[in-house]
Amino acid sequence: MDKLNFASDYTLGAQKDVLKALIDNNFTPCAGYGTDEVCEEARALIREAAACPDAAIHFISGGTQANLTVIGALLRSYEAAVAVDTGHIHGHEAGAVELTGHKVLTLPGERGKLRPETLEAFLKGFFADENRDHMALPRLLYLSQPTEYGTLYSLARLEAFREICDRFGLLLYVDGARLAYALASEENDVTLPDLSRLCDAYYIGGTKCGALFGEAVVLPRPEIAPHFFTIVKQRGALLAKGMVLGAQFRALFTDGLYERIGVPAIGAAKKIKAALKEKGLPLFLDTPTNQIFVLFTNEQYAALREKVALGFWERPDESHTVARIATSWATTDEDVEKLISVL
Amino acid sequence: MDKLNFASDYTLGAQKDVLKALIDNNFTPCAGYGTDEVCEEARALIREAAACPDAAIHFISGGTQANLTVIGALLRSYEAAVAVDTGHIHGHEAGAVELTGHKVLTLPGERGKLRPETLEAFLKGFFADENRDHMALPRLLYLSQPTEYGTLYSLARLEAFREICDRFGLLLYVDGARLAYALASEENDVTLPDLSRLCDAYYIGGTKCGALFGEAVVLPRPEIAPHFFTIVKQRGALLAKGMVLGAQFRALFTDGLYERIGVPAIGAAKKIKAALKEKGLPLFLDTPTNQIFVLFTNEQYAALREKVALGFWERPDESHTVARIATSWATTDEDVEKLISVL
Amino acid sequence: MDKLNFASDYTLGAQKDVLKALIDNNFTPCAGYGTDEVCEEARALIREAAACPDAAIHFISGGTQANLTVIGALLRSYEAAVAVDTGHIHGHEAGAVELTGHKVLTLPGERGKLRPETLEAFLKGFFADENRDHMALPRLLYLSQPTEYGTLYSLARLEAFREICDRFGLLLYVDGARLAYALASEENDVTLPDLSRLCDAYYIGGTKCGALFGEAVVLPRPEIAPHFFTIVKQRGALLAKGMVLGAQFRALFTDGLYERIGVPAIGAAKKIKAALKEKGLPLFLDTPTNQIFVLFTNEQYAALREKVALGFWERPDESHTVARIATSWATTDEDVEKLISVL
Amino acid sequence: MDKLNFASDYTLGAQKDVLKALIDNNFTPCAGYGTDEVCEEARALIREAAACPDAAIHFISGGTQANLTVIGALLRSYEAAVAVDTGHIHGHEAGAVELTGHKVLTLPGERGKLRPETLEAFLKGFFADENRDHMALPRLLYLSQPTEYGTLYSLARLEAFREICDRFGLLLYVDGARLAYALASEENDVTLPDLSRLCDAYYIGGTKCGALFGEAVVLPRPEIAPHFFTIVKQRGALLAKGMVLGAQFRALFTDGLYERIGVPAIGAAKKIKAALKEKGLPLFLDTPTNQIFVLFTNEQYAALREKVALGFWERPDESHTVARIATSWATTDEDVEKLISVL
Repeated sequence: MDKLNFASDYTLGAQKDVLKALIDNNFTPCAGYGTDEVCEEARALIREAAACPDAAIHFISGGTQANLTVIGALLRSYEAAVAVDTGHIHGHEAGAVELTGHKVLTLPGERGKLRPETLEAFLKGFFADENRDHMALPRLLYLSQPTEYGTLYSLARLEAFREICDRFGLLLYVDGARLAYALASEENDVTLPDLSRLCDAYYIGGTKCGALFGEAVVLPRPEIAPHFFTIVKQRGALLAKGMVLGAQFRALFTDGLYERIGVPAIGAAKKIKAALKEKGLPLFLDTPTNQIFVLFTNEQYAALREKVALGFWERPDESHTVARIATSWATTDEDVEKLISVL
Repeated sequence: MDKLNFASDYTLGAQKDVLKALIDNNFTPCAGYGTDEVCEEARALIREAAACPDAAIHFISGGTQANLTVIGALLRSYEAAVAVDTGHIHGHEAGAVELTGHKVLTLPGERGKLRPETLEAFLKGFFADENRDHMALPRLLYLSQPTEYGTLYSLARLEAFREICDRFGLLLYVDGARLAYALASEENDVTLPDLSRLCDAYYIGGTKCGALFGEAVVLPRPEIAPHFFTIVKQRGALLAKGMVLGAQFRALFTDGLYERIGVPAIGAAKKIKAALKEKGLPLFLDTPTNQIFVLFTNEQYAALREKVALGFWERPDESHTVARIATSWATTDEDVEKLISVL
Repeated sequence: MDKLNFASDYTLGAQKDVLKALIDNNFTPCAGYGTDEVCEEARALIREAAACPDAAIHFISGGTQANLTVIGALLRSYEAAVAVDTGHIHGHEAGAVELTGHKVLTLPGERGKLRPETLEAFLKGFFADENRDHMALPRLLYLSQPTEYGTLYSLARLEAFREICDRFGLLLYVDGARLAYALASEENDVTLPDLSRLCDAYYIGGTKCGALFGEAVVLPRPEIAPHFFTIVKQRGALLAKGMVLGAQFRALFTDGLYERIGVPAIGAAKKIKAALKEKGLPLFLDTPTNQIFVLFTNEQYAALREKVALGFWERPDESHTVARIATSWATTDEDVEKLISVL
Repeated sequence: MDKLNFASDYTLGAQKDVLKALIDNNFTPCAGYGTDEVCEEARALIREAAACPDAAIHFISGGTQANLTVIGALLRSYEAAVAVDTGHIHGHEAGAVELTGHKVLTLPGERGKLRPETLEAFLKGFFADENRDHMALPRLLYLSQPTEYGTLYSLARLEAFREICDRFGLLLYVDGARLAYALASEENDVTLPDLSRLCDAYYIGGTKCGALFGEAVVLPRPEIAPHFFTIVKQRGALLAKGMVLGAQFRALFTDGLYERIGVPAIGAAKKIKAALKEKGLPLFLDTPTNQIFVLFTNEQYAALREKVALGFWERPDESHTVARIATSWATTDEDVEKLISVL
């Protein structure tokens, strides 16, 4: 594949330090199933970075798997997850949460983000409904940081969600598939320790943030999910060679790599957005992270696609296409310049 | 309970002929699990009335159970049901369909009804989406006749749905919990043979239409759901004494009782709607069947509730309540007059 | 069906007092979904008879449904039920428990009964296994009283099970589909209050014990299954006309009917066993309740079947058939004499 | 971890050629979700090696995940898998298959192997049972090659299973977690093309056979599992960076590596077994592949464990422990000599 590639942030393998960690670790025998010392070291580093000394940390191979394993573990059969209607678990995980038996209740949002007032109004209505015992019980709020549209929740908004969750008996779960790009954004004011303090569970994305693959599920208070190891096994999410994930996350959390790794992506995105503006190509929505959504005419999209791999997003009308330009930890200045010249 | 009761169409036991059938049948030994002659006779009568000589007919104790058993049987794990957002399976069955593993995709409707164009636009969008293999596949259209708001689909609209389903590879399933009230409505032009011709599955409601309890699932082409008997068992929906359901449906389908049984309910509803109009009490929406939705001020609702059992429906705003007045096969002129005098 | 019928204890409708209760209740309006006064009265009577003043009691239409609803409610995804290998949930419920996501771990028994030592040895082995976190966790013991072979657990044995369950962290659940026949047996020393004291959940069988249909699930400590009402709804097991079940159980628990209703069945079984002995027809196993298992040659079985409806049980070898003769609350002396003359 | 490690065949990372493939591929952009060219090349190589030109091949991160995804895809809700009672899906996958809703019916075996006669007798009995429609339907035979005890099915036996499966309507699925060690064994006469010809589905193990992680599911006739891609996604088993698995399997199937990779393990196992014999240490059972099961006294086991990492297997009695010595593609002569000297 020779053409320029901005299709996604998972087109390459591992970032160099992560790759080196895999190579260095390759011939050291380790105990199985994540019980080894490499994993323990990775966990210790994450607990420190995220200020959650008692957290349970489980390494899982992908994001949908993390979501279904966590949500399946935290909910009883009659309980539902609540998500914004653009949430990944609702539209793009093939019904994985429903296959674990749970309804996903959706609420409208803006630019990928749910508003606390929307959640509060929904929950008030639910608990005031005389027929509520005939309905699935809202029990877990699912948020993504950054959202599926690359936007960010502010700390104030996350705290508002936490307060509402506490008031109505919900758990708060954050999908951090692209968390490194949130952490690298100037607009961001939510740290890993904030997530540990505010969430019942979250995951730190590896696949899209420099790992070959893998995500780290963090349960700040492990007692909410007893026997989580067995649950991970039962979902098929327990790698025999857990150290493969441990070695990667140990590298990602050594010397603050994870908090730095998204920086080039954000810089590249800025430049591209400036160039789009200059060329009069409208953004579908403006975002502070590594995903840029551009509103092309179908002809522009078709032409550009010949030269650059892009992500198809949606067709807002018959004659336009929204495409995603994704930068990543690996995006170089050269790539950006080539893209701009093509635009 | 001495007060007037218009809370629902399931406040009483069985219609007198159905009750008599149960009594007459009580001491006749029957084979178990619906394999008896009474059930066979009931099936033969339904097949004749519904013009579906090859149909498989299964008696099931309730509506949610019928829905989850049928939908669970017809879908593979990655397939979803499509329903209007006011559909019973979406809001009022406690996530029963999701517990069978399937997503319920919802579309907006009007007065409880989905429009064929809405479905078609959704399906066109779905199949044009390049990421569709990452999504649950729409595979079954769920409709209710009458709808949850007491409205009716016309034959023309049902035929349009069938055509769209055929074009996009969907099955069509109709929930007939209150089907007798559709059949008794002057506005209705959809017959049982029409349902047999147009649906892949539907159920004929008994619980709300004169039976002590029970629904009859009709599968016009049984080969679409092999081993359905075992599925019914596995869902806990197989009664050991199947003849109890068979005897009731045999009575309901003798001498056309089922097609007549809703008539008093429709007549009563008309009189009540006329009285509401006269008294200046606005309908929340107008319906041609046995459910009347009235928009009360909260004070009116509270006062009326002292004297009449009503169904709570929703709170459209802080100061109003929508309540349901449900008539039934058992509603008498006397009941109607009492209600009108109370209003 | 004119021939003599000993096929099962669910060939007839309701016992006369139960039938009368249904008729008397038929035209009294009731609130829906088991929230009515009739159900409340039935619950009060059961709580008194079973000495469990705080119990939650839910009426459910059938036994498999009761089993899957209770077991599904009590277990988390990674937990398993333990049953004797002849247990109903293992062999004859079409995989209903597995469909709720739970493994049924089986242990060998004798004449339908599990021995406490067998359970204890299994649990000791399980918890000593270094790989136990890779296995489904045994969390609920399922027993039937009487068992699937008509045998009875003694109070001493039930207490032993309770003690083992406590020691290893298991819940104890008893399937009482034919409980009335246990209560009527001279050999029985387990009362309803004993079940309330020893079990975390059990159900009192109606379908096979004089009801038209229905079972009463008893949860002596309701807090172990929060939101059970919604769970029942979600499983499709919530009848809109809950009063139909309430009225039957109110009748069954009025004047101690339930504890008397099995007496004729036990008397009839005794006479039949005496006659079988006299005629040299061997029992497959001897039982103290209403099910008689006879070892016929295939020829005997075929001949008898012409004249009497019997239950097929199994083929222990090529030339023999085990058939079940089931007596019931409705078996008359006349039926017994006819059967004996045919034998 | 400095001590000698024979605990399992998944203690190290990737075999050197596989590791090199990962490194070489690391900075080449690839399309996501296994739709890339690297995966396509890997699939082509496997199709050729396994003589299944039309096969669908899906890369999945682990064995339990492969099993639950395939079995969940191939069975309808009322269908069950059949396995020998030592089968991995029964005892050591935490109830993963049951969580997909399916019963695992178990049959006794010998040294980890099921006998065709045992299967045939079971199926004959099942289909002769008059109550079979009340039972989960046996629909898929699960075998492991090598078995969980390291033993091998002969081609003749596999052909016998295929014939029985055809006769009774079962699918045949083979779990090849350690398939490379079967292929390298002198005793083996079952080739990859044989598996393609005889199985409806099987998987080629990577994790334990030289890959960093990953398994290749082969569906020789893809039409038996439509929409398998979406199913993989829904189970959380679809890696965004599918090329990571593709690159490994491309390496494993280049120049016949997969068929050679187990050879050192088999040679090492032979030497160790000879040494055990010489030292009078009894085998628990003799096996032709890379797992050696030794019956130690508890004291021997405790002492040895200080110096060598071993796999705990089971406690056949109070004073003995069965431990597993696993060799692998990475076992060196030096390791073997050290182990023998320690023994």
